[in-house]
Amino acid sequence: MTKDISRFPVVGLENLPTDLADRIATIAEKSGFVPNVFLAMAHRPDELRAFMDYHDALMEKPGGLTKAEREMIVVATSAANDCQYCVVAHGAILRIRAKNPLIADQVAVNWRKADLTPREAAMLRYALKVALRAQEIEPADHSALAEAGFTQDEIWDIGAITAFFGLSNRIVNMATIRPNDEFYSLGRNLPIKD
Amino acid sequence: MTKDISRFPVVGLENLPTDLADRIATIAEKSGFVPNVFLAMAHRPDELRAFMDYHDALMEKPGGLTKAEREMIVVATSAANDCQYCVVAHGAILRIRAKNPLIADQVAVNWRKADLTPREAAMLRYALKVALRAQEIEPADHSALAEAGFTQDEIWDIGAITAFFGLSNRIVNMATIRPNDEFYSLGRNLPIKD
Amino acid sequence: MTKDISRFPVVGLENLPTDLADRIATIAEKSGFVPNVFLAMAHRPDELRAFMDYHDALMEKPGGLTKAEREMIVVATSAANDCQYCVVAHGAILRIRAKNPLIADQVAVNWRKADLTPREAAMLRYALKVALRAQEIEPADHSALAEAGFTQDEIWDIGAITAFFGLSNRIVNMATIRPNDEFYSLGRNLPIKD
Amino acid sequence: MTKDISRFPVVGLENLPTDLADRIATIAEKSGFVPNVFLAMAHRPDELRAFMDYHDALMEKPGGLTKAEREMIVVATSAANDCQYCVVAHGAILRIRAKNPLIADQVAVNWRKADLTPREAAMLRYALKVALRAQEIEPADHSALAEAGFTQDEIWDIGAITAFFGLSNRIVNMATIRPNDEFYSLGRNLPIKD
Amino acid sequence: MTKDISRFPVVGLENLPTDLADRIATIAEKSGFVPNVFLAMAHRPDELRAFMDYHDALMEKPGGLTKAEREMIVVATSAANDCQYCVVAHGAILRIRAKNPLIADQVAVNWRKADLTPREAAMLRYALKVALRAQEIEPADHSALAEAGFTQDEIWDIGAITAFFGLSNRIVNMATIRPNDEFYSLGRNLPIKD
Amino acid sequence: MTKDISRFPVVGLENLPTDLADRIATIAEKSGFVPNVFLAMAHRPDELRAFMDYHDALMEKPGGLTKAEREMIVVATSAANDCQYCVVAHGAILRIRAKNPLIADQVAVNWRKADLTPREAAMLRYALKVALRAQEIEPADHSALAEAGFTQDEIWDIGAITAFFGLSNRIVNMATIRPNDEFYSLGRNLPIKD
Repeated sequence: MTKDISRFPVVGLENLPTDLADRIATIAEKSGFVPNVFLAMAHRPDELRAFMDYHDALMEKPGGLTKAEREMIVVATSAANDCQYCVVAHGAILRIRAKNPLIADQVAVNWRKADLTPREAAMLRYALKVALRAQEIEPADHSALAEAGFTQDEIWDIGAITAFFGLSNRIVNMATIRPNDEFYSLGRNLPIKD
Repeated sequence: MTKDISRFPVVGLENLPTDLADRIATIAEKSGFVPNVFLAMAHRPDELRAFMDYHDALMEKPGGLTKAEREMIVVATSAANDCQYCVVAHGAILRIRAKNPLIADQVAVNWRKADLTPREAAMLRYALKVALRAQEIEPADHSALAEAGFTQDEIWDIGAITAFFGLSNRIVNMATIRPNDEFYSLGRNLPIKD
Repeated sequence: MTKDISRFPVVGLENLPTDLADRIATIAEKSGFVPNVFLAMAHRPDELRAFMDYHDALMEKPGGLTKAEREMIVVATSAANDCQYCVVAHGAILRIRAKNPLIADQVAVNWRKADLTPREAAMLRYALKVALRAQEIEPADHSALAEAGFTQDEIWDIGAITAFFGLSNRIVNMATIRPNDEFYSLGRNLPIKD
Repeated sequence: MTKDISRFPVVGLENLPTDLADRIATIAEKSGFVPNVFLAMAHRPDELRAFMDYHDALMEKPGGLTKAEREMIVVATSAANDCQYCVVAHGAILRIRAKNPLIADQVAVNWRKADLTPREAAMLRYALKVALRAQEIEPADHSALAEAGFTQDEIWDIGAITAFFGLSNRIVNMATIRPNDEFYSLGRNLPIKD
Repeated sequence: MTKDISRFPVVGLENLPTDLADRIATIAEKSGFVPNVFLAMAHRPDELRAFMDYHDALMEKPGGLTKAEREMIVVATSAANDCQYCVVAHGAILRIRAKNPLIADQVAVNWRKADLTPREAAMLRYALKVALRAQEIEPADHSALAEAGFTQDEIWDIGAITAFFGLSNRIVNMATIRPNDEFYSLGRNLPIKD
Repeated sequence: MTKDISRFPVVGLENLPTDLADRIATIAEKSGFVPNVFLAMAHRPDELRAFMDYHDALMEKPGGLTKAEREMIVVATSAANDCQYCVVAHGAILRIRAKNPLIADQVAVNWRKADLTPREAAMLRYALKVALRAQEIEPADHSALAEAGFTQDEIWDIGAITAFFGLSNRIVNMATIRPNDEFYSLGRNLPIKD
């Protein structure tokens, strides 16, 4: 039994290039703690910077999918990849973004049985296919999303977020990056939706 | 979006044979609510009775595996079967039995990355094999458990609990039985173990 | 090469609680021998009793699926789980119930190529999904059964029988329970149907 | 429900080239009936001739594996490919060659639970790997067979028989070739081995 | 690192029966080298003869599928079986037959993304199902091919070519038969199609 | 049959932010053409920039794995993900980096049968596990790499390159990004190694 953050070297913020240290400090201020994934990737500052840029380009991009929809994709596909860090950390963010204390666990265990709108279900069906069988994607998959009301741009969002967290999931599983204890309980006391 | 408890008919306790109604009332008294699985199986009282008997024979049996170990098996194998009800409900029980607010989510997402003792890891490795590839079980699997300190009787426990919840998982997924909202937050405020 | 009945302790009828001993004696009288599964589970009388109760609740229940249909489900799903005991033992019962000496082998090897009515094919398609991918069951699966003429109650039967024998298959494979020699040839001399 | 022999055209012996008609007549004389596979492949005489030549080169070859071992490979790998014709037809031949009325069903459902010598188990383990994951074969697989006493020549036999029946299994499943009713009961009344 | 042609004994043409030696010499004359697969199978002359006969019956048969279509099936299904020899050797032949220097690599990596006509795509979809899941073939698969314009005879061709190369793929992977260096570059300088 | 570069909007260099346009122009100058992947991702400049940064951080990083080893990882894992663009484009780069005209096709079809050193084989075994089953990575996987001579830093490289191209593979398959025709023949006329 171990509580190591990672199987690879862990670097403190004080040893990071200033731009990264500042950026992570800002995140830490908001959430109240430094998410372990940053400390675990910090021994590779260039990769970490690109990782954060890619993350923000997808997850902070104005317009398109809602923030809650994006987190829902992260949780569903990270669960398919058995990625403990991403399911726990983004599960917390999903609860908060969706203002729904139940949705993260539902989506993580079996999205088909979650409280989803048809739009959300179509979104996750596609995301899971990108995560697990992207090679089999065919025009019919895109038509199904168009029928569910998604624009071309939003379809790209779904696939690209899935692809990016597929990268993240593999890094986490390779390095056994441990989710911060704080994530587990975040957003659990929100009122339950009718 | 629906909050139905099951795709099949739901029967209230008042319409159940007395022995079952009493038994479930006792459970409800302890937990503060009637777990939905009983209401969802109540339209088949004979099956429900056998289900409860089998459950208790395995989960209440004196000696052998600890209560926490048994729940850990349920959570890990139910997660492998994507069973929302069992992961959420038994995740709650596992947190309480193990006095550990993090362990259920860890085990549900990826037991290989959970805070486990070597004994627990050996136990779950076997349980997952029974759940997913029981036909491939060979003497080496039993030797590995013996080396990890399990008795023959405890090996049977691991496999039988896995098999029983494999039944439960399939019923739940067939009927889309919905976990009670209460389960999600139970045991989440326990102190975190060092 | 071994002819042990089980990897776990085997208990004779004389050491069983009377209710179980009597019940099994009645079965033995009908079939002419004591099916090994009872002897292999007898070291756990409470589990065995619940197992027999559950079995009878599903397989002896009046109305609904025919006896032959129920056995067909058992054979097809047990074959998918590579369960030697269940395929051999219930294959024998299926031949007798269906008065068809060929059907058990056909269904065990590849139900898609068996002599089935469209109703039977729809039934087995669903049963196999419950056995192997219950988490993916969606409303369309139930609609397909409704179109094939199955009532809600019969759909539950199909799924519940599959789930129960999924339990049985896992116990058998865990314990390597050996089918009685007698089962192999039972019902093989029935006249072949046109 | 149909009793067609094949989804493709079926040609009678009288319309076959003489060499093939004679060859099949000899087989029919021995077994008492014309195995359907010949009638189902007869619309392609050149393929049928090569098929029979390849079959005989592997299955009638003097020396090396025993006849019973060869049939055991056929049954085990055809079962893995869910090939009804081959499991039923070669199951019959296996019972006769092995003088064992139980072995075919045992091997077809789960070779790991069959009454096998360690040599036979090693043989089937390799055969199944060739059938299902030949691309993953590594030197260690061949060493394991050498340790179990197989010569290089016999290793080729195991793999080549598996490969040939992999062809056969696919043709049968493509064309839904129906096993003759006679095969099901052949060899079932042999005395059971101790 | 080794450049052995096979893990099994390799026999030179001079030690082959005359009919085989002559036949292979003719092939070698056309291609400019002796394809290794013949040398690797030559220690089993009867099997090699049947192999060549079966090959020619399918691949040289007049009428039906074009030569390029047949090679396309070989490349796509051999890629699905991870067969280095067949993908490299028949990739070369496909480039030449199709007068297209790109098509072999496209089909080998992902036929869904290759420059295919709808007829070719339907053909490969079926071929892949025969290669990987022949047991699940259903009437709908044949109807889809009929709608795409294939005759019954051509459907047999697709399936039989797939089945035959499934045999070949397994032999190659079992024996680690090495493709001749010459195959890699054959047909790569053809003009690219618009 | 289409020769579209992508299912999503394609943006020319002239419409890209200067930094990206310059960066891609430099690449185009070296290779003689603009790789399609840049044009296909250009409608999302922020994502493209992060993508290129991440790529360079991993693939241009001084020290650690050789350039040829890195490309070998890309080809092997992209083949496992059936990514036509990455196999074709990085296959070309691998041939050039490794000065070996055969290695890319060998690795793409079946790395187990490629001309690899034991170090390269250990590297690809791990890369494939990260690509396909990262959740199952255990300490033993890292020990195997250490025994094969890899440093902790190089292990991270293997996993991170795999993870990054897993992202790339999914984007490509989602968007059906077409490899430039030029890639197919690059490096094919290099002398063959002994």
